[in-house]
Amino acid sequence: MQVIRNIKIIRDCVKYAKSKDKTIGFVPTMGALHQGHLSLIKKAKKDCDIVVISIFVNPLQFESKEDFKKYPRNFAADKDICQKIGVDFLFVPQTEKLYPLGYCSYVNVDNLDKKLCGAFRPGHFRGVATIVHKLFNIVQPDIAYFGQKDFQQGVIIKRMIKDLNISVKAKILPTVREKDGLAISSRNKYLTKQQKKEALILFQSLQLARKMIKGGERDAARIISQMKKLIKKVPEVKIDYVSIVDINSLESISLINKRVLVALAVWIEKTRLIDNSIISP
Amino acid sequence: MQVIRNIKIIRDCVKYAKSKDKTIGFVPTMGALHQGHLSLIKKAKKDCDIVVISIFVNPLQFESKEDFKKYPRNFAADKDICQKIGVDFLFVPQTEKLYPLGYCSYVNVDNLDKKLCGAFRPGHFRGVATIVHKLFNIVQPDIAYFGQKDFQQGVIIKRMIKDLNISVKAKILPTVREKDGLAISSRNKYLTKQQKKEALILFQSLQLARKMIKGGERDAARIISQMKKLIKKVPEVKIDYVSIVDINSLESISLINKRVLVALAVWIEKTRLIDNSIISP
Repeated sequence: MQVIRNIKIIRDCVKYAKSKDKTIGFVPTMGALHQGHLSLIKKAKKDCDIVVISIFVNPLQFESKEDFKKYPRNFAADKDICQKIGVDFLFVPQTEKLYPLGYCSYVNVDNLDKKLCGAFRPGHFRGVATIVHKLFNIVQPDIAYFGQKDFQQGVIIKRMIKDLNISVKAKILPTVREKDGLAISSRNKYLTKQQKKEALILFQSLQLARKMIKGGERDAARIISQMKKLIKKVPEVKIDYVSIVDINSLESISLINKRVLVALAVWIEKTRLIDNSIISP
Repeated sequence: MQVIRNIKIIRDCVKYAKSKDKTIGFVPTMGALHQGHLSLIKKAKKDCDIVVISIFVNPLQFESKEDFKKYPRNFAADKDICQKIGVDFLFVPQTEKLYPLGYCSYVNVDNLDKKLCGAFRPGHFRGVATIVHKLFNIVQPDIAYFGQKDFQQGVIIKRMIKDLNISVKAKILPTVREKDGLAISSRNKYLTKQQKKEALILFQSLQLARKMIKGGERDAARIISQMKKLIKKVPEVKIDYVSIVDINSLESISLINKRVLVALAVWIEKTRLIDNSIISP
């Protein structure tokens, strides 16, 4: 595995591989690699000849400097994981090269970036779309891999790819969960043992929604109300939103007559957690 | 010359050419081709193995529907010109394919898009950056060619290329002028013979600025004031702006101690005309 920090060098490596008709799989990450990332890398290895992972904690997608600063970073462990799993190129760009002095270009995916988490994290999805597009332009992958846990991110990236005529296929892979159901996330590292137990309420509320929909409930408001009621039984958990939306437009749905996305975001003390599930009636 | 309307087909044609190690020169246009465009095409032919021209009147960069509708279109003549000059691929995409239902992704080059013309044409440069980026993604050129007459457009595209890590080199070629100095523009077609004479005041005011700077004048405000005074001698001409700015940041300059851009925009009845000149002290 080659660790590459320089933009021109990764470009050249990919160009060379492509000249040999190799396909490129790409997993953009912010590091703190976990089982969720591993499932993406494994799939990339299965699909493609060459696998590129990027590790870059993108300042543009954090609303607060504090959140950016405390975001977990452990390059030595990440590198070890990538090496063991057989990544070809580990790309670790420098912030000042990606955002040089005078930087002022941004990709906006309007409307979609205001829904769900977007309403609570202004600028977040602009940061995500911009960095993903930049990395696509540098790495020129055939396929890029994202986790369903960040469902809105996936929808926005797919929309961006379609709208801006980008020659990359985005694949969204299922959320990887702990045995007890907790969605695996880098931010779980912030949680105490007790908080991890409290965090199970996210998955449990999604299971409640599934059970209600499978049981014939079609009224989204009633499901959301029951989910909120369940969550409020854990007083440490503060709700940002619980929503049932169209899986493409992310618009709220009142009557469930097709596959829907049930999504929620909560706070446990200073840690924001999200989870979601796609449920068919 | 092949006329191509389909996005996938132009992609495949370019891909095939690239697989044969051909370099791709690209001239994006809105049609109504004139000597200015021809100078870009000629340069592209000189630099590159394959020359692609696009003709697309981009609705996203017009503020008013009226302006969009009346924009000159003459495909038969344009096609003839391209054929004669030896264009390889004439790409004529369809609006509904470039902006399909639900389209919502945009490229913003902040700050730069608010200067000069941006202050008078909100959304215009977002439209320009977005379509140019889309066309870059489709055509995948090595070099793209733009005219200096649209200087701000050139600065914004160069910034976008740098910021978003786009693998295209943008070349800006000198403004082509009529013998009397009038900058050639598709919009000149709107002008009556009399108005064409009145429009000479743009070039004359730039010449005045040049004369003053070469004569030792360093105070931008004094130059602008003299230019405006000259323009006002033609009562049919209404000024949008007359500015002296930094050639990279487009920020106003008060003391001229390096190369500057002198730029102006005026209206003659319902036709908006722009012109500019780079002048060294």
